[in-house]
Amino acid sequence: MGPSSDVAHLGHVELLTDRFDESLDFFARVYGLTESGRSGDSAYLRAFDDYEFHTLKLTRHDTTGVGHIGYRVSSPEALERRVRAIEASDYRVHGWTEGDLGHGPAFQFEDPFGHIFELYWETVKYEAPEAERPALKNIAQRYHGRGCCPRRLDHVNLLAENVTEFRDFMQTCLGSRVTEQILLDNGRLGGCWFTVNNKTYDLACTEEHGRGTGRLHHVTFATDQREDILRAADIFLENGVHIETGPHKHAIQGTFFLYVWEPAGNRVELANAGARLILAPDWETVTWTETERKKGQAWGLKTIESFHTRGTPPVKDGT
Amino acid sequence: MGPSSDVAHLGHVELLTDRFDESLDFFARVYGLTESGRSGDSAYLRAFDDYEFHTLKLTRHDTTGVGHIGYRVSSPEALERRVRAIEASDYRVHGWTEGDLGHGPAFQFEDPFGHIFELYWETVKYEAPEAERPALKNIAQRYHGRGCCPRRLDHVNLLAENVTEFRDFMQTCLGSRVTEQILLDNGRLGGCWFTVNNKTYDLACTEEHGRGTGRLHHVTFATDQREDILRAADIFLENGVHIETGPHKHAIQGTFFLYVWEPAGNRVELANAGARLILAPDWETVTWTETERKKGQAWGLKTIESFHTRGTPPVKDGT
Amino acid sequence: MGPSSDVAHLGHVELLTDRFDESLDFFARVYGLTESGRSGDSAYLRAFDDYEFHTLKLTRHDTTGVGHIGYRVSSPEALERRVRAIEASDYRVHGWTEGDLGHGPAFQFEDPFGHIFELYWETVKYEAPEAERPALKNIAQRYHGRGCCPRRLDHVNLLAENVTEFRDFMQTCLGSRVTEQILLDNGRLGGCWFTVNNKTYDLACTEEHGRGTGRLHHVTFATDQREDILRAADIFLENGVHIETGPHKHAIQGTFFLYVWEPAGNRVELANAGARLILAPDWETVTWTETERKKGQAWGLKTIESFHTRGTPPVKDGT
Amino acid sequence: MGPSSDVAHLGHVELLTDRFDESLDFFARVYGLTESGRSGDSAYLRAFDDYEFHTLKLTRHDTTGVGHIGYRVSSPEALERRVRAIEASDYRVHGWTEGDLGHGPAFQFEDPFGHIFELYWETVKYEAPEAERPALKNIAQRYHGRGCCPRRLDHVNLLAENVTEFRDFMQTCLGSRVTEQILLDNGRLGGCWFTVNNKTYDLACTEEHGRGTGRLHHVTFATDQREDILRAADIFLENGVHIETGPHKHAIQGTFFLYVWEPAGNRVELANAGARLILAPDWETVTWTETERKKGQAWGLKTIESFHTRGTPPVKDGT
Repeated sequence: MGPSSDVAHLGHVELLTDRFDESLDFFARVYGLTESGRSGDSAYLRAFDDYEFHTLKLTRHDTTGVGHIGYRVSSPEALERRVRAIEASDYRVHGWTEGDLGHGPAFQFEDPFGHIFELYWETVKYEAPEAERPALKNIAQRYHGRGCCPRRLDHVNLLAENVTEFRDFMQTCLGSRVTEQILLDNGRLGGCWFTVNNKTYDLACTEEHGRGTGRLHHVTFATDQREDILRAADIFLENGVHIETGPHKHAIQGTFFLYVWEPAGNRVELANAGARLILAPDWETVTWTETERKKGQAWGLKTIESFHTRGTPPVKDGT
Repeated sequence: MGPSSDVAHLGHVELLTDRFDESLDFFARVYGLTESGRSGDSAYLRAFDDYEFHTLKLTRHDTTGVGHIGYRVSSPEALERRVRAIEASDYRVHGWTEGDLGHGPAFQFEDPFGHIFELYWETVKYEAPEAERPALKNIAQRYHGRGCCPRRLDHVNLLAENVTEFRDFMQTCLGSRVTEQILLDNGRLGGCWFTVNNKTYDLACTEEHGRGTGRLHHVTFATDQREDILRAADIFLENGVHIETGPHKHAIQGTFFLYVWEPAGNRVELANAGARLILAPDWETVTWTETERKKGQAWGLKTIESFHTRGTPPVKDGT
Repeated sequence: MGPSSDVAHLGHVELLTDRFDESLDFFARVYGLTESGRSGDSAYLRAFDDYEFHTLKLTRHDTTGVGHIGYRVSSPEALERRVRAIEASDYRVHGWTEGDLGHGPAFQFEDPFGHIFELYWETVKYEAPEAERPALKNIAQRYHGRGCCPRRLDHVNLLAENVTEFRDFMQTCLGSRVTEQILLDNGRLGGCWFTVNNKTYDLACTEEHGRGTGRLHHVTFATDQREDILRAADIFLENGVHIETGPHKHAIQGTFFLYVWEPAGNRVELANAGARLILAPDWETVTWTETERKKGQAWGLKTIESFHTRGTPPVKDGT
Repeated sequence: MGPSSDVAHLGHVELLTDRFDESLDFFARVYGLTESGRSGDSAYLRAFDDYEFHTLKLTRHDTTGVGHIGYRVSSPEALERRVRAIEASDYRVHGWTEGDLGHGPAFQFEDPFGHIFELYWETVKYEAPEAERPALKNIAQRYHGRGCCPRRLDHVNLLAENVTEFRDFMQTCLGSRVTEQILLDNGRLGGCWFTVNNKTYDLACTEEHGRGTGRLHHVTFATDQREDILRAADIFLENGVHIETGPHKHAIQGTFFLYVWEPAGNRVELANAGARLILAPDWETVTWTETERKKGQAWGLKTIESFHTRGTPPVKDGT
């Protein structure tokens, strides 16, 4: 079975912050996104080559974490098919919204762990204002070179107490493929990496160890080169941003990574997958055992403890 | 309209050479592919993370150029659909082959300019021998580091006297999307970049100016980083390989490139697209005018004259 | 004979501009230098890890070109020795200045082609204001990441009608070594690359073909990585800066380069030498013949015509 | 006081191995040095742009560690001056050797901790055999691209129970400058980084915590780019080489690093300093406190425990 042709790609992630101004300053000036709009309690941001109006919706809130995750479908008909499949399932349906600054009507539903997803077809393509017009017409916005300046939204990583149940949800609702997974010695899935297209993954789910609900592990934008990530490490350092781990290369998926905490505490990643894509329509899920995982990351870096426990919003014990 | 879900990806290119031993030495030792098999007059080669048995079939011949171009489909049903569509067209059909070392039965057909294409579903996945097993199980073969060491096949570029007709062929037979194109002042298409998936392009067609038939412009493999291409330039230099142009960045598609001639004269490219992908299901073709093209490549490099005229096999005037 | 221990390093270059505001905007915002002071008609600029107050003095003038070139000596005694040597020569001496914002008394003298040099010992080390303090105390200023953000001044390239005479001047006055040179078929030196320390060169002189006097070919700052230069190319492109040639690798000295014209027309380079240094105390000058030079740059790029003729200030025929 | 003009640069390091064949295979095939000679129990190796016959002498021995460290002086007179200074000191003098395959007579002496140093002027410049001739005449050998392929020897790091005493030795015998140092809370020097030229350091000394004598911490070669080090990490991984720590960036000196253990257990580094040089003749030593060091490396990586204790040869407790 090939990739789902119904769901096209991860469209946007809504991130909650209880330090809105500092978070916005971080994403715009340090991380290098561009604000394309503001409405109510939310700022709408995007990387320079994201084609839609926004890929990160930053919302003022009393805590941190993820608001919702939006995927764009491939056609109006695909949206109908997906809605029927979701409505036929037992998953909790929130129903249609009128849309947002960056897209038209969206169908919202929820995974068993409290994360809200939405699917939409109608979108608002980013129209670069004069000052942001690119020299080359095939990119969405000029390469502004401000901050880390990633190219596009890459993926989101969510926490769930039962990764197997989460996997079923993703397959049923989005038709996602599992490209890699961790199989724990106790028989549980420790993590799953999903994709709806040729990217190696657009969403990952790892096991929740902090007793939180609907929590976020991290959100990630992609850079063009690994050097962009090394350069970003210096930018984070000079701007007092907490670097949690990296730069290093993941064993799983082979992604070159760097994790930091934005001012409100949400974990944010920069990643580069090189030329790696999942082109095989019959890609067989790569399964990593617990023993294999204990070797650490690709080049031997031990996975930092906070990476296993910390999510947003924080739970009582502070993780 | 979204990407074709029938055709999964460019699978392999057959390259003809009248200097087989030197060409093979180039591709294996300098360019950094791995030979996975030999049969009759052909050597089967692949990049370290190509998942199939071969992506480049190098065939001893009395001239140079392209033998055929193979695309893998998404499912057996998709293959049937494609075959029906092609048979319903006016394009020349060669019919079914029994397959090759690297794949099962293939359906062959021809574009109006003499290039032979084939579609296949059954494939032979590369099984790394002991010495080529990767340290990390999610890549097809170890990162051997030999020569330029690209990661995977990227695209092929063909010459056609009528690019518009070629475009119709690609849309009818493969369901390809046109991501970018050149529209000449005379109203003709000067070039078209096609994709069947989320890659920015897997096949390009540019106008034939040399009166040749079924000619090849170049075949390209992708590197993980632009630095791999700068390093490759030194490797080519030290191995006496003719560098035609580059490294530089294309205006069209934004690809970082380097073009060389393998010993028999076929043009071979190394390319890096960074994190650029075509994720929009409703991507609108980017059209470049002749005036825009005259600005040269992205950073101002003038397109080298031989790039407009030279293809393989050569025609009488030597281009 | 080893490197001169009298002269320590190239200290600063004064650049003249007849478009002061635009030039300053270019150097500060696009090229990525930091202004450390302003006095009279001059702005004082430096790269983030230049340890002195300034390395580029940008001066409002009625034309373009180079004002003067400053070298810092190794000690007060070294300065005395150099002054004696210069005074004992036939070169034109301007004598002592009171110094500048960025350094103490300087001894000025002139080469036979009208370029003014100065030597000084007392300097003003850059003291980063609060907002520019680096996170790591071993660099002079924070890595600000603004624009191209080179690390330090690298070298200057001057034009002279007689390169041999210029070479004698450099050896007599500065004790410079010639690390590489071009020997034309007519027996003249076509170019000379000089150094007073372990850098591969800090000053180059190429033959003047434009009948100008005391002209500048270009001034160059060094980036940490080649990727910084590829990234800079996009920054120049997006800011409408004319890219003259590159990025590519010089055959001579092996430097990775990119040449642009700042708004007033002075040629400015970004360069990266990798790990290449001249460590041999008895380094033998590498001599390139005219035939060798005709092969173009390291990877085959033909040297652009304007590179041979254009200097600043312009001469009557516009070169 | 400026840099010593008497001692030109670190020339070579002799490394002892009790697994000669495996160590040699590592350095030649994986690390990417070239063997230029063999004599008795030693193989002579060098990086592609080292100008001397050898920079690493690998010697079969019953244990591991460093044999001796050779520095080349700037002239025959400089050698005489150095010998007089060393003979006038209390340091242990071994006296003159007849030289080695790669250089002429050398004057040997010893630091208070058992490391043997030598100074020499006459050297054997590497003459590339036909197959190793570079395409460009200004590098010593072709860029062969084999293994990690560093450009040149960079530095050596030794262990000493009293870093202050070691520093005095370096200043007295070599005239080295201290560019950076660690000052422990107990008032002892924890580490010192030395240079005799414009490199940021060519020798480092850190405190011996393993009760060993004359031990080696590591020897390092320099790559042209940081990307070379990321690529090297994959090469080490695929060749089963133990990666101890990195890639990451040192806080001290800002060097991008990767540490591995060659088959006999000696620690070997690849490093890249970017464009960083010590040009100031009056560079003031940068002093790091114990508190500052506790922050870990530049981007927050905690210094791995074995880094503080492990040297070669091993001591009884295995460090």
